[in-house]
Amino acid sequence: MAGAWRTAARPKNAHQSQLLRLLRDDGPRSRAELGDVLRMSRSELAADIDRLIALGLVEPAAARGGRRIVRLSPSLRFVGIDIGATSIDVAVTSGDLEILGHRALPYDVRHGPRAVLETALEMLGKLRSEGVASEIHGAGIGVPGPVSFCDGKAVAPPIMPGWCGFPIRETMSQELGCPVLVDNDVNVMALGELTAGLARSNDFLFVKIGTGIGCGIVVGGSVYRGRSGCAGDIGHIRVDDSGPLCACGHTGCLEAYFGGAALARDATAAARADRSRFLAERLAANGELTAADVTDAVAAGDATAVRMVREGGRHVGRVLADLVIFFNPGLVVIAGGVAGLGHTLLAEIRGVVHRRSPAPATANLPIVLSELGDAAGVIGGARLISDHVFSSGSRGWT
Amino acid sequence: MAGAWRTAARPKNAHQSQLLRLLRDDGPRSRAELGDVLRMSRSELAADIDRLIALGLVEPAAARGGRRIVRLSPSLRFVGIDIGATSIDVAVTSGDLEILGHRALPYDVRHGPRAVLETALEMLGKLRSEGVASEIHGAGIGVPGPVSFCDGKAVAPPIMPGWCGFPIRETMSQELGCPVLVDNDVNVMALGELTAGLARSNDFLFVKIGTGIGCGIVVGGSVYRGRSGCAGDIGHIRVDDSGPLCACGHTGCLEAYFGGAALARDATAAARADRSRFLAERLAANGELTAADVTDAVAAGDATAVRMVREGGRHVGRVLADLVIFFNPGLVVIAGGVAGLGHTLLAEIRGVVHRRSPAPATANLPIVLSELGDAAGVIGGARLISDHVFSSGSRGWT
Repeated sequence: MAGAWRTAARPKNAHQSQLLRLLRDDGPRSRAELGDVLRMSRSELAADIDRLIALGLVEPAAARGGRRIVRLSPSLRFVGIDIGATSIDVAVTSGDLEILGHRALPYDVRHGPRAVLETALEMLGKLRSEGVASEIHGAGIGVPGPVSFCDGKAVAPPIMPGWCGFPIRETMSQELGCPVLVDNDVNVMALGELTAGLARSNDFLFVKIGTGIGCGIVVGGSVYRGRSGCAGDIGHIRVDDSGPLCACGHTGCLEAYFGGAALARDATAAARADRSRFLAERLAANGELTAADVTDAVAAGDATAVRMVREGGRHVGRVLADLVIFFNPGLVVIAGGVAGLGHTLLAEIRGVVHRRSPAPATANLPIVLSELGDAAGVIGGARLISDHVFSSGSRGWT
Repeated sequence: MAGAWRTAARPKNAHQSQLLRLLRDDGPRSRAELGDVLRMSRSELAADIDRLIALGLVEPAAARGGRRIVRLSPSLRFVGIDIGATSIDVAVTSGDLEILGHRALPYDVRHGPRAVLETALEMLGKLRSEGVASEIHGAGIGVPGPVSFCDGKAVAPPIMPGWCGFPIRETMSQELGCPVLVDNDVNVMALGELTAGLARSNDFLFVKIGTGIGCGIVVGGSVYRGRSGCAGDIGHIRVDDSGPLCACGHTGCLEAYFGGAALARDATAAARADRSRFLAERLAANGELTAADVTDAVAAGDATAVRMVREGGRHVGRVLADLVIFFNPGLVVIAGGVAGLGHTLLAEIRGVVHRRSPAPATANLPIVLSELGDAAGVIGGARLISDHVFSSGSRGWT
C-alpha cells in the first residue's frame, strides 16, 4: 500500500493541485463552482476530478439540490510532529487539517534522534490504535533548530546534540511509508498560524520568542526560507555593537538582550544585586532562575521584572520596526514561551513599532499574540506536508 | 483590433501561462520538451498550444530534425516606459524581452502627468514609425515615487507634484489600447535586473541609491510589494534616533545619512567649513553642490569626500546586514546614481555586511553593482507587463 502511494498518488498538474487546495481550505464544492473558480471547461474539470478520484484523494459527495458536490476523501490522514526542546507533540489530521487526535509528552530532545523519533512513532501508534488513522498520507515534522529543508536534516543545531546530519526525513519516510518533510519549528508554527490561527493575511511575520528568537516569514501563503534556508534568523540581528555577548560569538545580538536565556541571566543578576525581592527569594528557594520566574514576577507586579520585560520589548520592537518597513506585512504574530509575558510585552513592542515605522507600513498593522499554543506546531506540520502532497511541483516524494 | 485584444488574448489556464513564460525565458522548444517540462500529455499540450496559436501568442516554427518546434509569436511587442525625475526612457521589446528600439529624453517629471505621458507617447510613436512595432500587446511603466499598484496611480509622491491620484494606468491603457501596469521605479528596475542583469537568483534585493534610497524585493521571480505596496522603503529605516532630520519628519533615517540629497548637504557643509579644497572650489564655481560633485571629488582622491562615502557605505551596510539576516537573499544588487561612486562605496558595504551577518546568510552572498544602467527600467517595464499578459490569474486586463 505504502509503496503504491509513493509513486502514484500525487496530482499530475497545476489544476489538480489547485483543486485539492481549494477543497482543503474551503470545504466541499460543486463542480459548477470549481469550474468557475479554476476557469476550466466542464470536460477538462471532469477529467481532472476523475483522476483524483482514481487516486483516492477526492470523492463525489451526495448531490445537494441537483448540484454535484466534490470533496476531499474522508480517509485522507496527515500527521504533524512537533519536536520541542523538552516535549514531543504528535497529531493526526483529516485532509482538511482538522485535528482528529493529539498526544503530548515531556521528552528531552537531547536523548538524540533515534530515541526521540521512536517515541514519536510510538505516540503515533497509540493514536492509530485509537482508530483515528489507518493509512497515513504524509507527515510534517518541526524541530527546534536550523534545518536544511531540501535534505531533511538538522544542521549544527545548538540545542540538539547528536542530531546534526541525522537523516530525519529519510528515516521517518521509511518508517511511515509516506512523504515526510522536516523544517525548523518556527517555520512550521507559522504555517499552523496560517491554517488555524489569527493570520487572515497571506503575508505575515511569525515571531517566536522562546529561549532564543526566530521569525517565520510567510509570503503568499508559503514559508519563505531564503537562499540557504536561514531566512528569519532575527535573533542575530545586531541591536548594539557594544551589547552583551551572544551564544553565536558576536556581541549585541537581539537574542543576547532578550529571550528566555537572556531573561534568566538578567533575573539572576537582579536577584544577586538585591534589585528584586521576588526574584531573590525565588533564587534562594530553587537555586536558579528561568524565564518562567520572570513571568511570575511580572504577574506579581515586581517592578524590576516589569522593567526588564519592557526593555526587552523595546529591543524586539526596534528590530521589528525595521522589518515592518522592509517587509510591509499584513500581520505580526508573537508566540513562544516568553510570549507568556503577554500584554506587558506586547504593549511595548506595539508602541515601538508604531512610533518608529512610517504610517503606510503600520497603518492597520495588527501585532497580536498567537492563541494556538501547542497546536501551532502539529497543525503546521500537517499543513506543510499537505501542501507538498497536494502539489504537482516535483515527481515522487523526495 | 485593440478591442478584441482586451477581452480575448490572454492564456486561459495555468498551463498556458507556464508555457508562454517558458518560451519567453528559454526560447523556442519542441513539443516533446514542453510536454516533459510541463508534465502534460501530448493531447492536453496540443489543445493548449492550439488555443495560444489562435490567440496569436504562439506559432509553430520550422521543424528541426523531425522535432516540432513552438515559439512565441514574432509579432508580439511589449513597451517599457521609465519615467525618472529628470528623464523619460521608452523602449519596445519582442515577446522574449529583447530591446528592438530605445529612446531617451531629458524631461522634468514636475511638468505633470499629462505633459510627461504625452511626451512618452510621442517617443513611442517615433519608435513605431521606425517600424519596430505595429500592434502593442502591453506596456509597463515605472515612476519615481510610491505607487498604489492595484490602482495604477502614484500616491503622495514627494518629487512628482501634480501626479498624486492621476490615473496613469487607465489613461495609458486607453491611449495604447492594451494592458498597462504602473509600479514604483525601484520595483520595475529590479525586474529588469532579473530579466537581463546579474540576477541569477530568483530571490534577491535590488537597492537603488539615488536622491533617496529604496529596495526592490524579488521573491520567487516576482516583485514582493507587501500589504499596502510599500515594502522595501528602506530609506526610512532608523539608523540612529539622534541622527539628522529626514524629509519624512523623523530623525536618523538611512536616507537622512546617505543618498544624493544627504551627500549634497554634507558636501556643502564640508566646503563651507573648508574641510575639502576640491568641494570648496566646486561650490565657489557653481554656487551649489550635488552628489555628482562628491563622485568627482572621490575620483580626484579628495580625503573628505572619500570619508563621507565610506561613512555612508557603513550606514547602508549596517541596514543591509540586518536585512540579509532576515531575508537570506541569493544576491544583493546596488544601483542608482550614487552607485556611480562604485567600488569605494561597494567595498564599504560589503565589508560591513560580511562582518555583521552570520556566516550561513552571507556565505557566497554576492553584493554587486548593477551593470544595466538606463536599460533596467525599460526592460523591467516590459517584463512587468509580459508577466501579466502571460498570466491567467485575472480576467481581462484591469
